[in-house]
Amino acid sequence: MEAKVLRVGFLGFGTVGRGAYKLLTRSPETLTRRCGAVLVPVRALVRDLSKDRGADVPPGFLTTDPAAVLEDPEIDIVIEAMGGVTAALKYSLGALRAGKNVVSANKDLIAEHGQELFAAAESSGADLLFEASVGGGIPIIRPLKQCLVGNHIDEVMGIVNGTTNYILTKMNAGNGGFGAALAEAQRMGYAEADPSSDVDGLDAARKVAILASVAFTSRVTFDHVYREGIAKVTAEDVKYARELGGTIKLLAIAREVDGAVEVRVHPAIIPQTHPLAGVGGVFNAIFVKGDAVGDLMFYGRGAGELPTASAVVGDVVEVARRLVSGNGSGNSGLSCTCYDEKPIRRMNDVHTQFYVRMVVADRPGVLASIASIFGAQRVSIASVIQKRKLENDAELVVVTHPVREGDAQEAIRQLRLLEAVTEVASVIRVEGFATA
Amino acid sequence: MEAKVLRVGFLGFGTVGRGAYKLLTRSPETLTRRCGAVLVPVRALVRDLSKDRGADVPPGFLTTDPAAVLEDPEIDIVIEAMGGVTAALKYSLGALRAGKNVVSANKDLIAEHGQELFAAAESSGADLLFEASVGGGIPIIRPLKQCLVGNHIDEVMGIVNGTTNYILTKMNAGNGGFGAALAEAQRMGYAEADPSSDVDGLDAARKVAILASVAFTSRVTFDHVYREGIAKVTAEDVKYARELGGTIKLLAIAREVDGAVEVRVHPAIIPQTHPLAGVGGVFNAIFVKGDAVGDLMFYGRGAGELPTASAVVGDVVEVARRLVSGNGSGNSGLSCTCYDEKPIRRMNDVHTQFYVRMVVADRPGVLASIASIFGAQRVSIASVIQKRKLENDAELVVVTHPVREGDAQEAIRQLRLLEAVTEVASVIRVEGFATA
Repeated sequence: MEAKVLRVGFLGFGTVGRGAYKLLTRSPETLTRRCGAVLVPVRALVRDLSKDRGADVPPGFLTTDPAAVLEDPEIDIVIEAMGGVTAALKYSLGALRAGKNVVSANKDLIAEHGQELFAAAESSGADLLFEASVGGGIPIIRPLKQCLVGNHIDEVMGIVNGTTNYILTKMNAGNGGFGAALAEAQRMGYAEADPSSDVDGLDAARKVAILASVAFTSRVTFDHVYREGIAKVTAEDVKYARELGGTIKLLAIAREVDGAVEVRVHPAIIPQTHPLAGVGGVFNAIFVKGDAVGDLMFYGRGAGELPTASAVVGDVVEVARRLVSGNGSGNSGLSCTCYDEKPIRRMNDVHTQFYVRMVVADRPGVLASIASIFGAQRVSIASVIQKRKLENDAELVVVTHPVREGDAQEAIRQLRLLEAVTEVASVIRVEGFATA
Repeated sequence: MEAKVLRVGFLGFGTVGRGAYKLLTRSPETLTRRCGAVLVPVRALVRDLSKDRGADVPPGFLTTDPAAVLEDPEIDIVIEAMGGVTAALKYSLGALRAGKNVVSANKDLIAEHGQELFAAAESSGADLLFEASVGGGIPIIRPLKQCLVGNHIDEVMGIVNGTTNYILTKMNAGNGGFGAALAEAQRMGYAEADPSSDVDGLDAARKVAILASVAFTSRVTFDHVYREGIAKVTAEDVKYARELGGTIKLLAIAREVDGAVEVRVHPAIIPQTHPLAGVGGVFNAIFVKGDAVGDLMFYGRGAGELPTASAVVGDVVEVARRLVSGNGSGNSGLSCTCYDEKPIRRMNDVHTQFYVRMVVADRPGVLASIASIFGAQRVSIASVIQKRKLENDAELVVVTHPVREGDAQEAIRQLRLLEAVTEVASVIRVEGFATA
């Protein structure tokens, strides 16, 4: 039987596009055996024809004309790896409306414009797959959509940004504070000159919006995600967290509690025994709790040319298998799986533990005033530890029981006004410890 | 649009069957929304109608008549969770030949009779899916077949047996030797009265045969797997491994090296920094190295009613989605993915490091005779450590560089004949350490 020929177009041909091109062309017979089709990359839309692409493409492969990809009726599958939102949205919609299947590695696009894109895919019977948009090469979207479909997912908690995990890993190894660790990450090429998208949690927030949408089958967008970065985490906090049996990670957390979805990105202290605690350097991992399957974790490289391309090619082959099997009239039914409309919980109504590091006057009665402010806000205290004697002050670390975020924040606001409190130096949430 | 009704039959209704029944019936509208079909469990073949099944099934649901499942033309999907091989093979073949899709949780069956079963599935255009056969609820088969299809998989290394991992975790925590840890595992219900299938590595060998077949797209059966259990691992070995920066795990290892597949199950010392080292208790984890994606790990519960049922229901929904999407004439193309015929490497030709613990005469010249035996077999030594002074003897631990298995075994055979060697007490392979 002659294998069907499927033509692949590219929107953008940077790192990820080039990686996908390499994987598609390095051993075409193997891929054909695996998916029943011959996959032929035919054209890539780029802005600059003269730029060196680091891949040996045939003459005429690169084009600056969008129509050469979007309006070529022979192109069945489009890989969108251009990054950014405006042009990516326009061209992806164009491709989907033309009935082309789109494989996207673009988390910004999916997290901000998923709804519009999936609607376009639905009406033209095309697939929009996006395994590469979260966790690089780690299989997570398809396992959630397929393997775990019999579960009610309670929680998805992940380390989904390698840059910040590298920085926190360095800080945890005792290599100084945030500034030094960031500088080293920049030297190593793990952080950009302007690191804000990583360090401020924007990148992680986009990814957790996607994860939450898939896990809870309800649309969650970037705007829904509460977000704090890691720039305020200090060497002391890292040290004290370790003394508490914990480690500080930038966590992307999505939970469904009582039918509502909470979704947030912030530094958190997790137990050293938690599966996520051992995830070091630029590695990513996503921890999933399902009501049938229990605890799962998916671990791997969250970025990079070939890891991300691995996920892209997995999606391309998925589309190819469907087209070969003769189901070319409808899509796989797996592109959009937001069947429900669950409310998003306001951050103030989330429940979590808090670590609060304060510098306070070192005199009798101060602890009582602090405790009474927490108490008045129904914030129950799990432990108070005096860490250091400073000149006239003492450094105190308070860890709360799980409490309502809004109550804790109100208590902290009042603490800042207290004469005896010189400084509330750090407020870090605490997750994953067993609580009585 | 009215949802298609798909009827589900069961072969066997023990722990896994009951779990799948619970997941299929607890919230049918949710599942229908997720797969586009109404999934209706209609009948289960059992041996004993009077046994309490721990699930509230309708009258007439249980039957002792195989034909009531196999010959009911209304049954589209059959869940095979009867365990054992002979009857499971007969009935699964019957179901596949009748064009029914089979979802199996039976590792023995798949590892020993996969070829025959997949051929039957292929000729009738049915699917035979088996995510639940390895790693319980951990998604691993589908990620390998779909998400990672663009990779050449170099290695799959897993902790795939919870019983032995529980025993080794206990031993590692300093709770005595193998016997005491096994007794505790039995008390906890993690090990059976006759623990040999777990402890001797039979269970892990079946699972790694399946993993290797999927990872290397070439048939590997139980008979191909070299196998050693954990009964000979001692408290001293656990302690010394720790001193070497390692931890002892029962590993299931499958590698493709130079086009040949090696596949084995045995205790091994791995670095404490390896992602698998932290996998404790009854948890399972599978580490995968792909040439594009790099290192991945999948972690979770490898057994149990609902974790295993989670995987079964994932497969059932997969079949349902295909049947709903109109591709009812051929199967998914994902049942059998053994496109290649790769040779199996003989165990003697495998390369690995060895830890050899010996009791030897404590006198000059002994080390030289030992070293010369290793040297004559081209076994290069990485370290020699004297561990304990015994009465007239000394305890020595030798760690080799990576060497050919056959050479190491020949050296060890000769050591045992050496007058100065009182005992070769332990031989444990060493995996995953960086070697120069």
